[in-house]
Amino acid sequence: MKMSMLHCPTLKEAPREAEVPSHNLMLRAGYIRKEAAGIYSFLPLAVRSVQKISRIVQEELNAAGAQEVLLPTIQPAELWEESGRWEQYGPELLRVQDRKGADFCYAPTAEEVIVALVRRDVTSYRQLPVNLYQIATKFRDEIRPRAGLMRGREFIMKDGYSFDVDDEAAGKTYDAMYDAYHRIFERCGLAFRPVEADTGAIGGSRSHEFQVLAETGEDSIVSCGGCNYTANVEKAEVQSGHSGEQARGEQTLSTTETPGTTTVDEVATFLKTKPANVVKTLLFMADGAPVAALIRGDLELNEFKLKAALGADELEMAYATTGEELTGAPVGFAGPVELAKKGVRIVADHSLGGMKDFVCGANAKDMHHVGVNLGVDFSLEATSDLRVAQGGDPCGRCGEEFQFFRGIEVGHVFFLGTKYSEAMKCNYSDSEGGEHAMVMGCYGIGITRILAAAIEQNHDKFGIQWPVPLAPFEAVVLPLNQDDDEVREVAQKVYEGLKAAGIEVLIDDRDMRPGAKFNDSDLIGFPYQLVVGKRGLKEGAVEVKNRRTNEKTLVPVNDAVDLVSAQIVAAREGGSH
Amino acid sequence: MKMSMLHCPTLKEAPREAEVPSHNLMLRAGYIRKEAAGIYSFLPLAVRSVQKISRIVQEELNAAGAQEVLLPTIQPAELWEESGRWEQYGPELLRVQDRKGADFCYAPTAEEVIVALVRRDVTSYRQLPVNLYQIATKFRDEIRPRAGLMRGREFIMKDGYSFDVDDEAAGKTYDAMYDAYHRIFERCGLAFRPVEADTGAIGGSRSHEFQVLAETGEDSIVSCGGCNYTANVEKAEVQSGHSGEQARGEQTLSTTETPGTTTVDEVATFLKTKPANVVKTLLFMADGAPVAALIRGDLELNEFKLKAALGADELEMAYATTGEELTGAPVGFAGPVELAKKGVRIVADHSLGGMKDFVCGANAKDMHHVGVNLGVDFSLEATSDLRVAQGGDPCGRCGEEFQFFRGIEVGHVFFLGTKYSEAMKCNYSDSEGGEHAMVMGCYGIGITRILAAAIEQNHDKFGIQWPVPLAPFEAVVLPLNQDDDEVREVAQKVYEGLKAAGIEVLIDDRDMRPGAKFNDSDLIGFPYQLVVGKRGLKEGAVEVKNRRTNEKTLVPVNDAVDLVSAQIVAAREGGSH
Repeated sequence: MKMSMLHCPTLKEAPREAEVPSHNLMLRAGYIRKEAAGIYSFLPLAVRSVQKISRIVQEELNAAGAQEVLLPTIQPAELWEESGRWEQYGPELLRVQDRKGADFCYAPTAEEVIVALVRRDVTSYRQLPVNLYQIATKFRDEIRPRAGLMRGREFIMKDGYSFDVDDEAAGKTYDAMYDAYHRIFERCGLAFRPVEADTGAIGGSRSHEFQVLAETGEDSIVSCGGCNYTANVEKAEVQSGHSGEQARGEQTLSTTETPGTTTVDEVATFLKTKPANVVKTLLFMADGAPVAALIRGDLELNEFKLKAALGADELEMAYATTGEELTGAPVGFAGPVELAKKGVRIVADHSLGGMKDFVCGANAKDMHHVGVNLGVDFSLEATSDLRVAQGGDPCGRCGEEFQFFRGIEVGHVFFLGTKYSEAMKCNYSDSEGGEHAMVMGCYGIGITRILAAAIEQNHDKFGIQWPVPLAPFEAVVLPLNQDDDEVREVAQKVYEGLKAAGIEVLIDDRDMRPGAKFNDSDLIGFPYQLVVGKRGLKEGAVEVKNRRTNEKTLVPVNDAVDLVSAQIVAAREGGSH
Repeated sequence: MKMSMLHCPTLKEAPREAEVPSHNLMLRAGYIRKEAAGIYSFLPLAVRSVQKISRIVQEELNAAGAQEVLLPTIQPAELWEESGRWEQYGPELLRVQDRKGADFCYAPTAEEVIVALVRRDVTSYRQLPVNLYQIATKFRDEIRPRAGLMRGREFIMKDGYSFDVDDEAAGKTYDAMYDAYHRIFERCGLAFRPVEADTGAIGGSRSHEFQVLAETGEDSIVSCGGCNYTANVEKAEVQSGHSGEQARGEQTLSTTETPGTTTVDEVATFLKTKPANVVKTLLFMADGAPVAALIRGDLELNEFKLKAALGADELEMAYATTGEELTGAPVGFAGPVELAKKGVRIVADHSLGGMKDFVCGANAKDMHHVGVNLGVDFSLEATSDLRVAQGGDPCGRCGEEFQFFRGIEVGHVFFLGTKYSEAMKCNYSDSEGGEHAMVMGCYGIGITRILAAAIEQNHDKFGIQWPVPLAPFEAVVLPLNQDDDEVREVAQKVYEGLKAAGIEVLIDDRDMRPGAKFNDSDLIGFPYQLVVGKRGLKEGAVEVKNRRTNEKTLVPVNDAVDLVSAQIVAAREGGSH
């Protein structure tokens, strides 16, 4: 295709609204335009990349036994009332009335409609499993849409739903979808990690997020180089990290004044020690009874883990007033020594096991204890894993050190169980006529978010550095001197050669300065640039630039097509990172 | 693919709601399911056909220089206020407020957003033409959604918009789109007609509808075998159909009682004559002045033509009271003889020119004149073309007889002019810096309606008879006796052979009676069925059924794959009708 015919309006200025690199670059390089907050138009280059992502998703899901359907975007409220989500969803659900006053919503996901579809036609174990997906526009009325396609209101999502006879069969489907997701992101040419995720809110029992690694990601992940265990920091299991024996101190407890120091950092600074030598004491109400949770001062407590460790049904931070009643001191001076004596239940993170001669609150205003030792000054039954994991922590599975990553969630597989099938009576009869709720899984991929995530991961200060499988065009031919017959002829020949080799190639036939053409090519991010100029032709050469590495190579004119197309074909199937 | 794995729930009973064959068959054959009035889920077979249609549309439009974009479904009201359509559109426009109370609509078409997109980035004649399209979900809140996908509320439409420097350039784009549409419907394998359409309401100057021919179509078309002129009956030009001389009668006018006969049929029956011998007199107010329009009793008057012939700005039927005042008689007894004497303006269709000794109202209750003759009993300046065309009428271009068809509108190309670009200030500057409004065209294709139209045109009492290019699968292999090793092996071999030949093929491995398999195959409409049974194999043969003709042929096992795949490959590119 001729670049003069491509509708790709590049901008010189970074638009003010752009917060993250992908947003900035997609606006500047002419991929998207904003129509309203969180609502974008996709220009031709973006559509091409979206179609490539969609095709990879379709091929892998079809091969894994899923089938594509298309569900309505406007869905009747009755179905959402059946599942309970009409009440629960809140203002993120875009609600709408039709001309007759009937209630509908613009679907943010499609559990209700898919259950309605399946329960209507699937009634026997003989018809199971069923595994259906769609690639469709979704709407979530985010209160603060931001960062372009990273968190838009209208976006394209692949959402899939599986139905099985029991947990075992559903587990196999889950594994098949997990494997398909792995292949999908590999084929996209992205560096990613499947991450064990928390299942809390949705209420299932197994869940993995697929995270594209990028410094600008809003999710925090730790990954173990030893056993490959990877999880969200909220969920990641951390080992005790010491022999199991309590570290032995040398000091004896004394109490000291620490006026006005209510945070760990303030205390540590005041006492000329490190935060890692201060024990943080946090007060909670667990099923109505007070609990003190201890953790090393430089770590963060994870309430999900605490709740699980306590076996509590309800857990909340204690009010300031409750805390003051318990400790006899204002917030910031709680500590385990006196609380243990009062019989308050005390639990601690594994990190306590490695501490000796530490600092903790003295349960009196402006007072801390120093030289405190566990087993000497107070006791615990045991320590547990209560922390938010971080890089350097010992892996909960094998003990190797965790590495820390930031990620962008682009996929999610979720073992749903019978939450929706029970609420909406989606049952099947077994071979003996017994009725059971189908066991469901749900599987999402943020198609348009992949576009943004790929750019967050693959860009430099000049523009986008597309992985070949997602690039809107794989190569561009740049004739530098349009007036020169030889330049024009060679450029055309190279362009035709690449087309004949099945490469998706543009020729930049625009009447512009070479510098402007280079800038646009770098900005848009074509993986390969073939520069045809008078200077190179004197040596019978074309300059080939690899946009990932920005390396330039002089290649004999007659070899350029073969060389570039071989590299592109090799890169098309993505690869592992 | 194995049919046992396909989610394709066929139904034995025709659902009560199904009004037309396509609706009935798509429900019964497991293509669609209704989620609300006019809102459907598409099951895997339907998605496959939709994707095939989309691919043909994309290939032809891209080849014709259009580029694919994707515009939001939820669009801000401000843009629709700029064009004036926020006020004009009425309740078919689904309006919605977001969580902050801002007004949006679910786009039924996208003129506003595309104009906003283009005016933002395209400012110079150097950047034109621009021709953009999308394939996207649309919503029209029809008051009476009906006939399944024929008139749904949520549907998939291809909508395209072109921007040119002037009428001449825009005309060339229009022609290119017209040609592309021709190829699209040809490649779909459909019998269709491009039809000159009325441009009235949208306000452009050139317009063609693409009509798929089908008895159940709601549009009426006439087409001339002589010069190929084809038009909607409302628009079709009809010649006078006689030499130009007034037919001469033999009778003289007399007046007779016709008690209680107020319709043409009643009068004709009562007077023992034909409706074609009665003149129908219709009273209108044209720009406030009364006009009587005359037409042969068996024809229908076309108000658009009448308005144009009168050169009137406003035209409406006269109220009954106004009519009674004018004629002195109740409705049903108006006639030209007395009205002409009163000086009322009288116009007549060409059909009057061929009539003699006719019947007309006598402007008195229960009275008609008989033996009336034009030029004798009253006069006219001239006759014009005022009728709704019908089969047998003389073509307005060449005089040959019109043939009559019913059609389903699946595409529309429209020369929009500057209606939107002027309202929304979508201007460009020419080489001398002058500002002009861009000249637009718009081009629609009802992607999901094509599915319904294809079935309306291609079905029998057993089910769908897909044209090969739109079939969800091109062939099915039916092993009749699943217990028989040889049957299973041969069926598998034929199935593998077709797959290897690149045919989209299913194998019906379900444990069902042969009759049930035949019924499902006929219902779903696979173009080719390859039946493998014990009886045939005794003769070394497979039965090949062509679903279009329902012809069955015994083919040697070893020839079946080559024969069927050759026929399918030949049929893939559609063809002309």
